Amino acid sequence: MNEIALDMRHQKRGFADFAPRHFLWSVSDDGKVGTVTLNRPERKNPLTFDAYAELRDLFRALVYANDIKAVVVQGAGGNFCSGGDVHEIIGPLTKMAMPELLDFTRMTGDLVKAMRACPQPIIAAVDGVCAGAGAMIALASDMRLATESARTAFLFVRVGLAGADMGACTLLPRMIGQGRASELLYTGRAMSAQEGLQWGFFNALHAPERLRDEAAALAAQLAAGPTFAHGVTKKLLHQEWNMGLDEAIEAEAQAQAICMQTGDFRRAYEAFVAKAKPVFEGN
Amino acid sequence: MNEIALDMRHQKRGFADFAPRHFLWSVSDDGKVGTVTLNRPERKNPLTFDAYAELRDLFRALVYANDIKAVVVQGAGGNFCSGGDVHEIIGPLTKMAMPELLDFTRMTGDLVKAMRACPQPIIAAVDGVCAGAGAMIALASDMRLATESARTAFLFVRVGLAGADMGACTLLPRMIGQGRASELLYTGRAMSAQEGLQWGFFNALHAPERLRDEAAALAAQLAAGPTFAHGVTKKLLHQEWNMGLDEAIEAEAQAQAICMQTGDFRRAYEAFVAKAKPVFEGN
Amino acid sequence: MNEIALDMRHQKRGFADFAPRHFLWSVSDDGKVGTVTLNRPERKNPLTFDAYAELRDLFRALVYANDIKAVVVQGAGGNFCSGGDVHEIIGPLTKMAMPELLDFTRMTGDLVKAMRACPQPIIAAVDGVCAGAGAMIALASDMRLATESARTAFLFVRVGLAGADMGACTLLPRMIGQGRASELLYTGRAMSAQEGLQWGFFNALHAPERLRDEAAALAAQLAAGPTFAHGVTKKLLHQEWNMGLDEAIEAEAQAQAICMQTGDFRRAYEAFVAKAKPVFEGN
Repeated sequence: MNEIALDMRHQKRGFADFAPRHFLWSVSDDGKVGTVTLNRPERKNPLTFDAYAELRDLFRALVYANDIKAVVVQGAGGNFCSGGDVHEIIGPLTKMAMPELLDFTRMTGDLVKAMRACPQPIIAAVDGVCAGAGAMIALASDMRLATESARTAFLFVRVGLAGADMGACTLLPRMIGQGRASELLYTGRAMSAQEGLQWGFFNALHAPERLRDEAAALAAQLAAGPTFAHGVTKKLLHQEWNMGLDEAIEAEAQAQAICMQTGDFRRAYEAFVAKAKPVFEGN
Repeated sequence: MNEIALDMRHQKRGFADFAPRHFLWSVSDDGKVGTVTLNRPERKNPLTFDAYAELRDLFRALVYANDIKAVVVQGAGGNFCSGGDVHEIIGPLTKMAMPELLDFTRMTGDLVKAMRACPQPIIAAVDGVCAGAGAMIALASDMRLATESARTAFLFVRVGLAGADMGACTLLPRMIGQGRASELLYTGRAMSAQEGLQWGFFNALHAPERLRDEAAALAAQLAAGPTFAHGVTKKLLHQEWNMGLDEAIEAEAQAQAICMQTGDFRRAYEAFVAKAKPVFEGN
Repeated sequence: MNEIALDMRHQKRGFADFAPRHFLWSVSDDGKVGTVTLNRPERKNPLTFDAYAELRDLFRALVYANDIKAVVVQGAGGNFCSGGDVHEIIGPLTKMAMPELLDFTRMTGDLVKAMRACPQPIIAAVDGVCAGAGAMIALASDMRLATESARTAFLFVRVGLAGADMGACTLLPRMIGQGRASELLYTGRAMSAQEGLQWGFFNALHAPERLRDEAAALAAQLAAGPTFAHGVTKKLLHQEWNMGLDEAIEAEAQAQAICMQTGDFRRAYEAFVAKAKPVFEGN
């Protein structure tokens, strides 16, 4: 199941040469930012069983990647992702028995878990259709940039399913509030880009021709930062999900003490004293 | 204590003939949407001990209702609900010993628990005064529509009590954020309709003469959807309240796999293939 | 370590005569509102090891204060607080071993724990720079007032550290949502006053010349309220952080029943019956 991940972990070449079969992968010139492009534009970039699995394996392998420091997820052809393909996924699912169904829902959930477990911040660049599992990939990212034409729909209900898919009932309320999340999950209606911005789902809106550059620039900015510390921030944002306040504060005391022993902390101090800009090395 | 609920559970007639003593109950022509109307308009629809108990019993009984698929809660005479009646509730409470007080606070809390535990989505239609326990009934609903004149006040502090009432300290922060919730609970000030809309408390505002129709239409839309799946969405929104992210994702994997074995999932797929609109049956 | 707190607890004079060494402390004429003023305006009120410890001890001692009913935290000279002093804190930290580092991160975390554990609502009055640990002190307060020029930055990342500091990864998402919190913590960028207002971080903005009076007035209003009940509200807002919904409702049933046995509850009822304004006594 996890062959790709294992393969990548053992190879010496790093992620620059990774050549997935079900989406595009590219790495920035400095080798630090990896970009996933969902690439079936003629059908608005739907997902298939194999695409889910390959995405999951990529994010699982990124846990061990020392070269990649930030990730962008985007779609080809003016749309982000239309979710699970009706013909290639929903049709077969209607014929499966429970063990196979659970295999599938656990696999899609594992994609979200893997996106949250890898240390790299993930930036979703959302244009056009962003629906179903596509909306969940955006939601499971750390930040989201979009265009005015982004239409984000958690439309599971439209295919007769619950809004409880891939963690939507826990992730969406914490992003936009319980009341707005309830409306989107019960009705399946699309959230407009402006709603997404005002509700805190999107961090910023950009012109369509600027979206990819803005996402790449934000990823490059993060990749030039103290990336070990970013990984700790991401881990703690995830780990404190259901901690008590006092336990969360103790967890951060330990986590931050670890970061205080990094070279990046010293580099920042030395740069400050020298009135220079710090150059972080991620260690 | 739970006579009404038991009585309703055993009757064959369903909820169409339910005739509560302390509020109005009506069922839509198709039998799917039940509407609670708090109906003491001359005093802005306050609650009494008996009204709390009867509401609690109604929502508990709805767990077993196969006919009712969505619920609307509204008030008569241009107001939603003024909360616990000062003369009929607060006066007696000032004279009670601790066991009786705890019986009361648990009963009001049980109303919220019952509203969250029944599988039907609940829509609050809020006009005018929405105060104290009335504000909590709105907050415990799944969605909230209102008019420009809605004034929502968690005014427990005004009668010398804590903002910690019926779950306010857990529900309100998740709806509008911890900072805004703190202000409303410490000061008891009214939240305006516009604030409620901008903060995510209200899902939409409507003209007063449209409010009931809009609430009924939204309820009818939900009742025409995959109602078994709606019940799963509601259960998971509640159940994941304090789960870790990974556990929540696993809970959704199991829940959604169950929904994938429903007829509604198959119906949606078949309708899609036939380029038709799916007709859901709630099973 | 906790000498100040112990000293204050045993003295009979109360908090009016408290004379801290590392910030200013004043008490309102009626003795009910205490005000902390961070007072190193020439450097935008940075914190030192001693200032952290003294603040922590003050808030720990306030648990036992019967006279002080609300607290304001503000900064001198048009800024709130620039966080941990680069020369006096960050420099030494870069030379410490792990046990000392953990002592430090636990001490700063203990300040937040103490601010949440004392029964008095805390109001932060934020003007100008509000950065690092300063932003955390604002975040750990119950309510936040600000001016248009307030610039709030969780800038730990700028010094090579994680955003996980003093509870930021649990407090900030609940205040402004997970997506906005992620952006601020990963990038360290300043949140403008308008963003803070729209996102629910600030409760209101005021003109700079009005800020202190508005904070004092809000504190006085709370101090004139049912302060025992305020302490219960604060405790439950904290205690329910990671409770399930049903457990939170039961916790509130118990807490509110306790409040129903206070004189303030009776006073409010009697005032209502007499058509008078209640005079609360905090018991």
